[in-house]
Amino acid sequence: MSQELYQRILTELESLVLIDPHTHINPHSAASTTLADIMGYHYYTELAHSTGLPKDQIEEPGLDPKEKVGRLVEKLHTLENTAQVSWLLEICREFFDFDGEMLTPKNWEQVYDTASAKMAQPDWEQQVLKQSKLEQVFLTNDFDDPLEGFDTSLYIPCLRTDDLVFHLTKPETQERLQKVTGEICGSADELRTAIGKLFEHFTANNVKACAISLPPDFAPAPVDAARAHTVVTKAHQGKELSCDESRDLSCFVFWTLAEFCSEYNLPFDLMIGVNRRVYEEGVYQGQDLYDKRTSLIQYSKLFNAFPNVTFPVSVLSQTSNQELVSYSWIFPNVVTNGHWWYSNIPAYIELDCRSRLQAVPQTKQIGYYSDMYKLEFALPKFAMYRRILAKVLSEDFVQGRGWSEEKAVSLGHLTLRGNVETIFQM
Amino acid sequence: MSQELYQRILTELESLVLIDPHTHINPHSAASTTLADIMGYHYYTELAHSTGLPKDQIEEPGLDPKEKVGRLVEKLHTLENTAQVSWLLEICREFFDFDGEMLTPKNWEQVYDTASAKMAQPDWEQQVLKQSKLEQVFLTNDFDDPLEGFDTSLYIPCLRTDDLVFHLTKPETQERLQKVTGEICGSADELRTAIGKLFEHFTANNVKACAISLPPDFAPAPVDAARAHTVVTKAHQGKELSCDESRDLSCFVFWTLAEFCSEYNLPFDLMIGVNRRVYEEGVYQGQDLYDKRTSLIQYSKLFNAFPNVTFPVSVLSQTSNQELVSYSWIFPNVVTNGHWWYSNIPAYIELDCRSRLQAVPQTKQIGYYSDMYKLEFALPKFAMYRRILAKVLSEDFVQGRGWSEEKAVSLGHLTLRGNVETIFQM
Amino acid sequence: MSQELYQRILTELESLVLIDPHTHINPHSAASTTLADIMGYHYYTELAHSTGLPKDQIEEPGLDPKEKVGRLVEKLHTLENTAQVSWLLEICREFFDFDGEMLTPKNWEQVYDTASAKMAQPDWEQQVLKQSKLEQVFLTNDFDDPLEGFDTSLYIPCLRTDDLVFHLTKPETQERLQKVTGEICGSADELRTAIGKLFEHFTANNVKACAISLPPDFAPAPVDAARAHTVVTKAHQGKELSCDESRDLSCFVFWTLAEFCSEYNLPFDLMIGVNRRVYEEGVYQGQDLYDKRTSLIQYSKLFNAFPNVTFPVSVLSQTSNQELVSYSWIFPNVVTNGHWWYSNIPAYIELDCRSRLQAVPQTKQIGYYSDMYKLEFALPKFAMYRRILAKVLSEDFVQGRGWSEEKAVSLGHLTLRGNVETIFQM
Repeated sequence: MSQELYQRILTELESLVLIDPHTHINPHSAASTTLADIMGYHYYTELAHSTGLPKDQIEEPGLDPKEKVGRLVEKLHTLENTAQVSWLLEICREFFDFDGEMLTPKNWEQVYDTASAKMAQPDWEQQVLKQSKLEQVFLTNDFDDPLEGFDTSLYIPCLRTDDLVFHLTKPETQERLQKVTGEICGSADELRTAIGKLFEHFTANNVKACAISLPPDFAPAPVDAARAHTVVTKAHQGKELSCDESRDLSCFVFWTLAEFCSEYNLPFDLMIGVNRRVYEEGVYQGQDLYDKRTSLIQYSKLFNAFPNVTFPVSVLSQTSNQELVSYSWIFPNVVTNGHWWYSNIPAYIELDCRSRLQAVPQTKQIGYYSDMYKLEFALPKFAMYRRILAKVLSEDFVQGRGWSEEKAVSLGHLTLRGNVETIFQM
Repeated sequence: MSQELYQRILTELESLVLIDPHTHINPHSAASTTLADIMGYHYYTELAHSTGLPKDQIEEPGLDPKEKVGRLVEKLHTLENTAQVSWLLEICREFFDFDGEMLTPKNWEQVYDTASAKMAQPDWEQQVLKQSKLEQVFLTNDFDDPLEGFDTSLYIPCLRTDDLVFHLTKPETQERLQKVTGEICGSADELRTAIGKLFEHFTANNVKACAISLPPDFAPAPVDAARAHTVVTKAHQGKELSCDESRDLSCFVFWTLAEFCSEYNLPFDLMIGVNRRVYEEGVYQGQDLYDKRTSLIQYSKLFNAFPNVTFPVSVLSQTSNQELVSYSWIFPNVVTNGHWWYSNIPAYIELDCRSRLQAVPQTKQIGYYSDMYKLEFALPKFAMYRRILAKVLSEDFVQGRGWSEEKAVSLGHLTLRGNVETIFQM
Repeated sequence: MSQELYQRILTELESLVLIDPHTHINPHSAASTTLADIMGYHYYTELAHSTGLPKDQIEEPGLDPKEKVGRLVEKLHTLENTAQVSWLLEICREFFDFDGEMLTPKNWEQVYDTASAKMAQPDWEQQVLKQSKLEQVFLTNDFDDPLEGFDTSLYIPCLRTDDLVFHLTKPETQERLQKVTGEICGSADELRTAIGKLFEHFTANNVKACAISLPPDFAPAPVDAARAHTVVTKAHQGKELSCDESRDLSCFVFWTLAEFCSEYNLPFDLMIGVNRRVYEEGVYQGQDLYDKRTSLIQYSKLFNAFPNVTFPVSVLSQTSNQELVSYSWIFPNVVTNGHWWYSNIPAYIELDCRSRLQAVPQTKQIGYYSDMYKLEFALPKFAMYRRILAKVLSEDFVQGRGWSEEKAVSLGHLTLRGNVETIFQM
């Protein structure tokens, strides 16, 4: 690969202003206030814990943020090879004037203090957005989020539905649903009405997607009315559901969500493959893993039943990427969406990005989302993706297929931004 | 990688005259008559449909070929990143004097007309064979193909057996079988006799392989005589078979085919892993997908039971490639066969080609087949493979292991042609 | 990649003295006595058999070693592309003054004779250790190995437990266990006592790991006392166990081993994913394959139940590598271990090495083990790994992330040696 070519294409990609189509940003507190917000990201707490830092030292109640960062930094040398730490260092360099090789017990306090000072500036959030070239940021909103007190044209609501599909038997879920919709949900019809009200509320507030994360063994299917009534009623009455009943309840709610996505013309983000709480003693958000024995064939009924709903699909296991490529190539309503979590490291992104660019129509690929909890992470994460994308465009398209650089850059723009606009109807 | 080295090796590989060991060519109409034959290939219709072209616009009864191409070209810009479109452009450039960057609504008509004129030349088929350096082309013949009216030393018959194994309960299959063999097939013995007659007919006509495509959950096993009799009789009587009976019927027919392959010394091509009609509303041949949860362990009984039958194995899921490498490394009767369908894109071919060349005996690898429906596709598809093969030979063998270029090219020749001759006993 | 950078890093890695953390070396006969010991390695016999050399020509009783090598060499040209043959040639070049391109029927006898002469030197074993830069070598010891007559500080004992977990119903296993422990094992308690005595014996002899290879469908779980008693008693009485009973017996023994690993502070090497005797007519050690449909989720109970036991995990299927990366990233007690068997070829090592270095803490990676049966194999196998490691360090860390060469080499040292010392408490 010509280094000059790569650099020219990268420069073009870096000039692009972004819409981040999936994050966990809290719009009321989007940017960090101390370095502990950055290093409290589960990637660092779980990795530090994985190399021996006890959970109670990380999650000690009332722990001072600075003390917390100090404890994490002690373990950082064991992780410095990871892509995750490279994001951290890029944040410190780009935002906090850090020029060292590594954050160490000797130098971290200065970075901490610089960060605190910068973050205390009243326009810090705007500074981060600007420096990161971020124009709009998708959220992950609980179904009972009031969606008030923030600019929904900057922070785009996204209706997250895991609780409804997988935790409806919990009393608190039912209470939250009743409270926000005024519906009692003692029957399937009432539950459907309640869900409809959520869609009304969200569409009135600029929602651009419905979203859910799904375990590897989930296989959505329609549930007939009688059965739906039985399981919804039983759940409402607080009775314990059998495995089959629990599955049917999840299927009923999921299918109902898809129906409303169709009615409200809303894309339904599927994030497929996560098992929750596999490592029960892990740190907060550092307990989930997966079973790679999953297939998109489990979603064939869904994709067939809702031709008018666009499904941006993320897969957790890298071994699912080829299925994602193939299903997006065949189904008009399936599009590829980002590089999720355990697949979000350069070795896998490169292979997956390459295969998608070679076989999925260019208009059906959402290249990347940051999945961030704090705004500062968009910069290094998108930077990582842009470098890989520039490499693939240079090697496969300009050198391999004789494309003009301009044309290769256009493909990069589609992937990075253009498709986000068209798929989510921005 | 030295570009000069790569180019020298590629030039050597390009000089080689080929035998294409698996295609869907109709020997009575091997080459195209209009560009619609080219663009009607399911890769283009399904991809165009995947980006929004309605099925009924593609498959409208009585649709004029030129009009069809025009409609597909309208969608082509959305696909121009795909490897599949790169084949199309290479065809247009190599055969139809096209020198543009992309086929567009503005320039396609000229290409269409040039193509029509060239295809109307009486020796077009021979021109394509010659320019593509194709010496022999394997077919995919229905079991009741009369194998008449074409040169079986150029177009090599291959007995395709999907209908027998998976659709024997259909009345039309039974009728076709009875018509071509004269056997009534009311019992397992009669069915076996009928199948034997197919092998007689095909071997009398230069057949070089038996072949079948198989769903991901198929696991061949012998079926005892009594059970075989029961299920064959029931199928013959038109009674509905249970799941288990249906499976046993498939197993019995499949096992019988393997027995005849042994008796007639015929390789049995297994194309493993396709689920048919997953996307039910898809275009013709654009409905099939797969479940990656399949394993070659399902074939261990078969490979053990038929040591004298060579099984050239293709896998649909790229995640099956390592199993294919390992099973070919251990079982004397298993050989690797090409890069099939959803795995037939450069990103996956390169990884799979590399692992095969590193771990499977060089005499047990069939590098590539085109899988084409029209002759014009051999050129760009084999060109894609040759480029990847030249890259792997240059990097891994000449540079990585110090092989002479001559020796690396010999390995390339084995993979591209030599092994086809020995494995299929040409 | 800069070739000079790569070469500098490789040179540094090559200077490192090694501990080989997993081999099948017989400490009483560690080095080879003829070239037949080298070429009798199952990689060559199985590959030669795979290309047509009959098993009985390889395993003929009383076969002269030289004659055996001659027969294998006849088939070697069909394998010369394989990584395995590249190891053989590197051995011949590095140890036996071979300077040819390939071992052939014409030149092999001279190599054979040179090898025999060198191997007859009284210090051959020491020469090999020194030239291979091997300081310590882990063994694979049967549970009833007396561990006598060799230097356990050079050849490190490792308690291999496959027989106990999967073959306890065999009378010979029970007899061996009774003989070595003096326990009758008619009850679960007695069996536990016997296993405890094995740990006592091994820890008294410098054992550094417990190890086992596991089939793809194994899912360890605790077994309650009553059930354990039932199945152990039944096994002791020689009664045939049902599938469920057999599984529970295996689980009970396995879980008991993990308990003793915890008590004796011993890492437990898990080698996950092998199906034994898939190709029943294969040569010795050339019959095993696998089913890629396996997941580390099957081990979640185990990893949760034994937080104090370190589990160095090897996976047979390359498609399991990402799970291994993810589980090592989350679970403090899971570490990555080498590149096993069918995954031990450059194409897969490179991808797996890259992903591990990008996402698993650097202190939790055991880069490589040779798995060798004869000492001469450490040199070419570690050389292969070092080249790949040097490539990944050069490309991803020095060039990709701007690391200093010194720092990249330090990461290489950790992977190659440092982590072996800390994880196995050398």
